[in-house]
Amino acid sequence: MKGRDVRAVILAGGRGTRFWPLGRAARPKQFLKIAGAEPMLVETVRRVRPLVPPRNLLLVADAAQTRQARKLLPKLARSCFLVEPEARNTAPALMLATARVWLENPEAVLAVLPADHIIRDREAFRRRLADAVEAAARDRVIVTFGIPPTYPATGYGYIRHDRTAGRKVGGTIFYPGLGFTEKPGLSLADEYLAAGDQAWNSGIFLWRAGVFAEKIERFAPGLAPAWKALVAALRSGSAAGLKAAYRLVPALSIDYALMEKIEGLVVADGDFGWSDVGSWSTLAEIWPRDASGNAARGEVVALDAKDCLVWNPGRVTALVGVRDLVVVDAGDALLICDAALDQKVKDVVAALKRKKSLLKYV
Amino acid sequence: MKGRDVRAVILAGGRGTRFWPLGRAARPKQFLKIAGAEPMLVETVRRVRPLVPPRNLLLVADAAQTRQARKLLPKLARSCFLVEPEARNTAPALMLATARVWLENPEAVLAVLPADHIIRDREAFRRRLADAVEAAARDRVIVTFGIPPTYPATGYGYIRHDRTAGRKVGGTIFYPGLGFTEKPGLSLADEYLAAGDQAWNSGIFLWRAGVFAEKIERFAPGLAPAWKALVAALRSGSAAGLKAAYRLVPALSIDYALMEKIEGLVVADGDFGWSDVGSWSTLAEIWPRDASGNAARGEVVALDAKDCLVWNPGRVTALVGVRDLVVVDAGDALLICDAALDQKVKDVVAALKRKKSLLKYV
Repeated sequence: MKGRDVRAVILAGGRGTRFWPLGRAARPKQFLKIAGAEPMLVETVRRVRPLVPPRNLLLVADAAQTRQARKLLPKLARSCFLVEPEARNTAPALMLATARVWLENPEAVLAVLPADHIIRDREAFRRRLADAVEAAARDRVIVTFGIPPTYPATGYGYIRHDRTAGRKVGGTIFYPGLGFTEKPGLSLADEYLAAGDQAWNSGIFLWRAGVFAEKIERFAPGLAPAWKALVAALRSGSAAGLKAAYRLVPALSIDYALMEKIEGLVVADGDFGWSDVGSWSTLAEIWPRDASGNAARGEVVALDAKDCLVWNPGRVTALVGVRDLVVVDAGDALLICDAALDQKVKDVVAALKRKKSLLKYV
Repeated sequence: MKGRDVRAVILAGGRGTRFWPLGRAARPKQFLKIAGAEPMLVETVRRVRPLVPPRNLLLVADAAQTRQARKLLPKLARSCFLVEPEARNTAPALMLATARVWLENPEAVLAVLPADHIIRDREAFRRRLADAVEAAARDRVIVTFGIPPTYPATGYGYIRHDRTAGRKVGGTIFYPGLGFTEKPGLSLADEYLAAGDQAWNSGIFLWRAGVFAEKIERFAPGLAPAWKALVAALRSGSAAGLKAAYRLVPALSIDYALMEKIEGLVVADGDFGWSDVGSWSTLAEIWPRDASGNAARGEVVALDAKDCLVWNPGRVTALVGVRDLVVVDAGDALLICDAALDQKVKDVVAALKRKKSLLKYV
């Protein structure tokens, strides 16, 4: 990828409730230090920094989240932050980012990276990403990484691809995409796991700005007026024009709005220790555990306690005779949850929203 | 008891680890608001106030705990606080308190009340206490309350008494005491429960100052030199003399030093909803519970959670899929404990003491 104009587009927005009580409406997952020493957004930037110069970073988020992101990354130039006129899902955010890059250089390659994933093998990731940049630069394709499934997950979308027709670029094989599928039920997920040609949708994409524009024109012409309006608004520099143009894009994911419709999608194996860190208990796979299987941030005194995950940094937590718990002390709010039920944390947030006196904890 | 000179001697000292992390070395149980709206010490004072004028309250504790007690009870005169030269168990504290009262009036009745018990039926308690004052004032006896056992407790000492030879004073029957026994094993506790003439030692005692002095002289002559030295030191007003005299008293409980040895002990039924609140899970009997059996101080959001006890006032606690837990958030330290194992909290404190960096949490 030497000499290529590559832009790392980091999706720094997004909200979520699955890390309550640490994660809040105003402090979503990408701003939490749950996966490494730094907030996930900062880890995402660090991961990609050896591949792109700082000026080629583009962090996309709404105004409030951009303010938080700038505090975490004070050395980045203002031009590295692209402010969404409003939070409206990934299709508007990525059309805006691509339009901005397209105006500068239609041949530039965008590498789209969610800020709330972790990747354990950074070196492997960088090698794959460099190959993917080459593939996107050479061919009129959109590249994505499919994560080889390790269990019949029902929480991810899948992407089917033709493993008999791979094409090698660098050390990486790129397979023709055969279509996205929604999150499956358990029996279908079992089939997908056995099939071998289904991978989890990682949300990582690469495209040339000009190729993205072509794909819209050819496969999603309904998006074309919005695309043109975005380009015009960016050209004119009018904030009001940009806001109006942004509203023309349907508030959909890029997968749904564009990727499901296109030809020329290629899929590479995302074999670099990816995890989307979907809930507290997934951190048990990442944090170091003691001999009893307890993993903690903060001091823990465990008496006959096993397989617990504790977030309580700067304080002490005593566990006596308990097991398989997620314990999160966020100061003003405390969660004690059976690890197998941590998907219900969103129901806790829903319950808090129903009671006026508890709204402040959302 | 109209016209009687009654002194309510409240044992305000004492340390303990069973309410960690709320209870600390410097903030033991009697200073915690765990049983009512006020700290247990304040509740103890309020409970006895209708029976004695404020000047007849005598709170016994060491200097540090006296400072805490005075903050909680700012309206009480300085003369209501009797400072132990050092913390040395109940025999020294009660010999000192009795010597002080004896110098003022040997006929005065002392009602000795631990500050870390709860009594649910205050009216019944006051009626029984008034009758006990009469019994102590009329006869040369020491009165105690025995708590009718409701289960084969192994955590209490017992007192045997002759239920065929009761003597009525007011509405209360006083039975001759037949001896104290140490905390029994489970099979002996079963026997005690079936026997009907065994009651739990409540630690509540009443005596006339002069009768107490007589009992020492007759049944515990080893304590007599210390008694005389305490009286002399109080008369002289010498702090150094008091300190030296205090050291003469063996650091034992009053039960062991005196009560086990005397004749003339009488026992009344303590049928007023007594509990010594021995550990967190005992509070589940006292605090109101919701339909799922959860009892809490602080807001709780419970999803499929049952029979949990939560201390987290001013904050919100979410419980998901858990049961029979004790959860205590003291700000800098958090306890999550199987309710059946809450006696192990003292082991947590012992573990904290072993690690220098964790000593601050003791």
